[in-house]
Amino acid sequence: MARFEHHIFVCTNQRVPENPRGCCDPSGAAFLQLRFKKELASRGLTDTVRANKSGCLDQCEHGPTVVVYPEGVWYGGVKPEDVAEIVESHIINRTPVARLLLAEECINTVSCAHKFRRKAE
Amino acid sequence: MARFEHHIFVCTNQRVPENPRGCCDPSGAAFLQLRFKKELASRGLTDTVRANKSGCLDQCEHGPTVVVYPEGVWYGGVKPEDVAEIVESHIINRTPVARLLLAEECINTVSCAHKFRRKAE
Repeated sequence: MARFEHHIFVCTNQRVPENPRGCCDPSGAAFLQLRFKKELASRGLTDTVRANKSGCLDQCEHGPTVVVYPEGVWYGGVKPEDVAEIVESHIINRTPVARLLLAEECINTVSCAHKFRRKAE
Repeated sequence: MARFEHHIFVCTNQRVPENPRGCCDPSGAAFLQLRFKKELASRGLTDTVRANKSGCLDQCEHGPTVVVYPEGVWYGGVKPEDVAEIVESHIINRTPVARLLLAEECINTVSCAHKFRRKAE
């Protein structure tokens, strides 16, 4: 046992409801991260895989956002009911869940078509 | 510009002062993460490198803890005055700062000699 084989960061950032970018964890209860923790525990994976809270990952328009390192796989719109599939397919069977992947042209890109932009006054 | 070339996670977890494991951000002010953000901004690196808050990275006895992905380099005992060196050496010149690296035998290992263990009653 040494470094984590997979380190899952689950955005738990909050913003005020009227913020146009939205946020990944409006309730502040970290339900999604807890769901990952429980799923990993139930499969005996906690020695090698960690599900961490993270601050804002800056992909707010695609939230709730999750990134898995070291492979750098980004997921968007992740719901608690997706967690078992991510753990089964990605973590155990090394096959990322295609339907939840953030599009390459959206990850950390100012040109992302979904990104909120303030209108010129 | 796309995925982050480096994604720096800075533990900003708090525990009560009497907790024997300690914690990485006793004040809750995230000074260390903010120092990384400022250092990256001052060097024009924010498009490709992100300094994120993270929840507990579970290396508390070695805190303040920082992990840099995708390379999976773990640092311990990081002080604000170390930040410029990490950015200069590791992020820009691709040479991790050896004096701050967590020992291999300490990273995510229950056998780590520094790990707090409750005494048997």
